[in-house]
Amino acid sequence: MICEILSIGTELLMGQVANTDAQYISRRLSALGISVYHHTVVGDNVLRVKDALETALLRSDIVITTGGLGPTEDDLTKETVAEYLSLPLILHEESLLRIKNRIRGFGGVLTENNLKQAYIPESACVMPNECGTAPGCIIEKDGKTVAILPGPPREMQDMFEKQLFPYLEKKSGETLVSRYLHIFGVGESMIETKLKDLFHLGTPTLALYCSTCETTARLSVMVKDAKDANAILDPVEAEIRARMGTALYAEGINETMPRTVLKMLKARGKRVSFAESCTGGMLASSLVDISGASDVFDMSFVTYSNEAKSKILGVDPGILKSFGAVSPECARAMAIGAREKSVADYALSITGIAGPDGGTDEKPVGLVYIGIADREGGWAHKFIFKGSREQVRISSVKHALNLLRLTILNTDGR
Amino acid sequence: MICEILSIGTELLMGQVANTDAQYISRRLSALGISVYHHTVVGDNVLRVKDALETALLRSDIVITTGGLGPTEDDLTKETVAEYLSLPLILHEESLLRIKNRIRGFGGVLTENNLKQAYIPESACVMPNECGTAPGCIIEKDGKTVAILPGPPREMQDMFEKQLFPYLEKKSGETLVSRYLHIFGVGESMIETKLKDLFHLGTPTLALYCSTCETTARLSVMVKDAKDANAILDPVEAEIRARMGTALYAEGINETMPRTVLKMLKARGKRVSFAESCTGGMLASSLVDISGASDVFDMSFVTYSNEAKSKILGVDPGILKSFGAVSPECARAMAIGAREKSVADYALSITGIAGPDGGTDEKPVGLVYIGIADREGGWAHKFIFKGSREQVRISSVKHALNLLRLTILNTDGR
Repeated sequence: MICEILSIGTELLMGQVANTDAQYISRRLSALGISVYHHTVVGDNVLRVKDALETALLRSDIVITTGGLGPTEDDLTKETVAEYLSLPLILHEESLLRIKNRIRGFGGVLTENNLKQAYIPESACVMPNECGTAPGCIIEKDGKTVAILPGPPREMQDMFEKQLFPYLEKKSGETLVSRYLHIFGVGESMIETKLKDLFHLGTPTLALYCSTCETTARLSVMVKDAKDANAILDPVEAEIRARMGTALYAEGINETMPRTVLKMLKARGKRVSFAESCTGGMLASSLVDISGASDVFDMSFVTYSNEAKSKILGVDPGILKSFGAVSPECARAMAIGAREKSVADYALSITGIAGPDGGTDEKPVGLVYIGIADREGGWAHKFIFKGSREQVRISSVKHALNLLRLTILNTDGR
Repeated sequence: MICEILSIGTELLMGQVANTDAQYISRRLSALGISVYHHTVVGDNVLRVKDALETALLRSDIVITTGGLGPTEDDLTKETVAEYLSLPLILHEESLLRIKNRIRGFGGVLTENNLKQAYIPESACVMPNECGTAPGCIIEKDGKTVAILPGPPREMQDMFEKQLFPYLEKKSGETLVSRYLHIFGVGESMIETKLKDLFHLGTPTLALYCSTCETTARLSVMVKDAKDANAILDPVEAEIRARMGTALYAEGINETMPRTVLKMLKARGKRVSFAESCTGGMLASSLVDISGASDVFDMSFVTYSNEAKSKILGVDPGILKSFGAVSPECARAMAIGAREKSVADYALSITGIAGPDGGTDEKPVGLVYIGIADREGGWAHKFIFKGSREQVRISSVKHALNLLRLTILNTDGR
């Protein structure tokens, strides 16, 4: 079954809002195993809406429209669809009552314009709007389906989940099952080379998605019954795990490096603290971003100046004088100081030159030392990151967490 | 001039990401007075890319593609455009060198795949990629223009601003001059009401763009000569400033609340420190994100647990026992403690319930106290923010900085 999403609204073409409706619907359709080959956006213009509808109905089984159901004159989706399918618009009494009640509930007055929203193409199945005034509808004609949804995301999502999704699920009969494998610190082309043959299996399909310092490999298969998916996905996942080793750090669509590290610490009853210089709190914030961080974290230090490093973390001023703040010696001393001060099991420190200024030949922009301390001592690792100030800082945070992850794995192994 | 945006990527059709590239480009084109009538999204499929390109070139003067420039086999934008326009792909030595240097800089190894990215359709004008490996290009043929941009937003935006925007501006024969006025803490509809008449001037145009807690008003005018713009923009800007008062905090496309506060502190030779609970370092990080933060900032504290608040900031355990950590008393004590510990001129503190768990009837999710201390004492302000954990944290950070801004303005006035 092929579906196309046709979004209608000049505000999308002006760039005032992103087309999050198309994203939301696509994600949900992919879960149902319904293929989406096109998203189209047109403005509030009868001719272009009609053209787009015609094209969409030629190449797809289902067309889902979003937007253009408001009470104003330039809202013309229903009118255009009805005209194109040669269906008259009929007053839907139940919708009119709902609209009246809703407007009265807000203390408003029903205007002529609102009446327009209660008209529905003949023979359409009405989808009531529980979050707004404009009802949606589903029209089946000549073996094709057109579903009309409102544009405001909250109204659209509520109507989609409660009414359109169950309709489509019944219609499709297949499900897409996916696994998301997160790989750290290996470039996209290197991963592609290592997994080359697995891209050509056909079933399951394998795709890569990149972000700073990491790549997600998505394994997907279409099945009649979700229970049949494991037998197909398990051996390929095992193969990817074997080839990627410890670089593969987590599985699951919502997994991230901070979440993974937080879970690892929690499972072992361990706590961590941080001492940050150039990342200025970004490392701590990446953990606190997750609800439940308090189980593994209670304090952290941002020590930007040399003075702060000595005063707050007890870094020996001699180290700062002899080696400078951006040095393995200072990173190590910061981590040890943060651990002692917080009585945590582990501490991570970051000190570096995030740029764009402050670099020298000897210590260029992007040079970062990451320190780690546990009850056996402290160590520092050198990194050179490329990119903007923000990228250097993000890379530093992710690599620091990865270092902690590898240290915990290593401790487990002993 | 009519432009169409053709975005290529199966990840868009799967709903993994929203098509923010199309939004970004549309917004910028609208600033140039270039009309956009269609956005189209297709997957990584030769046939559908070709079809979409054909349709787009029939109805538009300029087609801008985004995505499909990666090193992997399913990245096929350049190949398909070149084939459709009957242009051979030629190795572009300069791009190859750039790719080699970039990959080496990361300590990586150039793979066969990366080579592919250095091939460009014959006669195309290359747009180097300063944030990634894939170059873009502009092709003019038979009176039409095809511009090819990478998909990752950072790479796309950088290339668009530095290379495609100036090209389009030149093509249109006029220059767009814009001013960006940043307004904090006033709702969009309230701003709209206050500036109602200014939206109908025609010249200059006025548009509002909203983000968390703030709105940017963009004033724009198209002129043959940039020097003529001031006479048109100055009086309208003055009128907006008069109507918005101190809510208008800065002018300039790259201005932000953290930048504004940093500049204000720097100009007065003052320093600030922070004590964060639910924001966990995000406030400090928002300042350290800016190069030159060391002039106004040298240390900061993340105190997530009650114990940390007492131990690190000296918050009286009696306050925590009687009023709890999320209380004006605690916020005030945290700010005073952070200021004393750091010997800064100002200190800000944030303590609240970011959610999604931890709320009660008395202290609901979104309740945040922001404390501020200067040499005269400490005060706390109560806020109730709506939205997700992330939104509550971002709102807290922005409001804390705004509070410092207003305090500094107030001190100036005395």
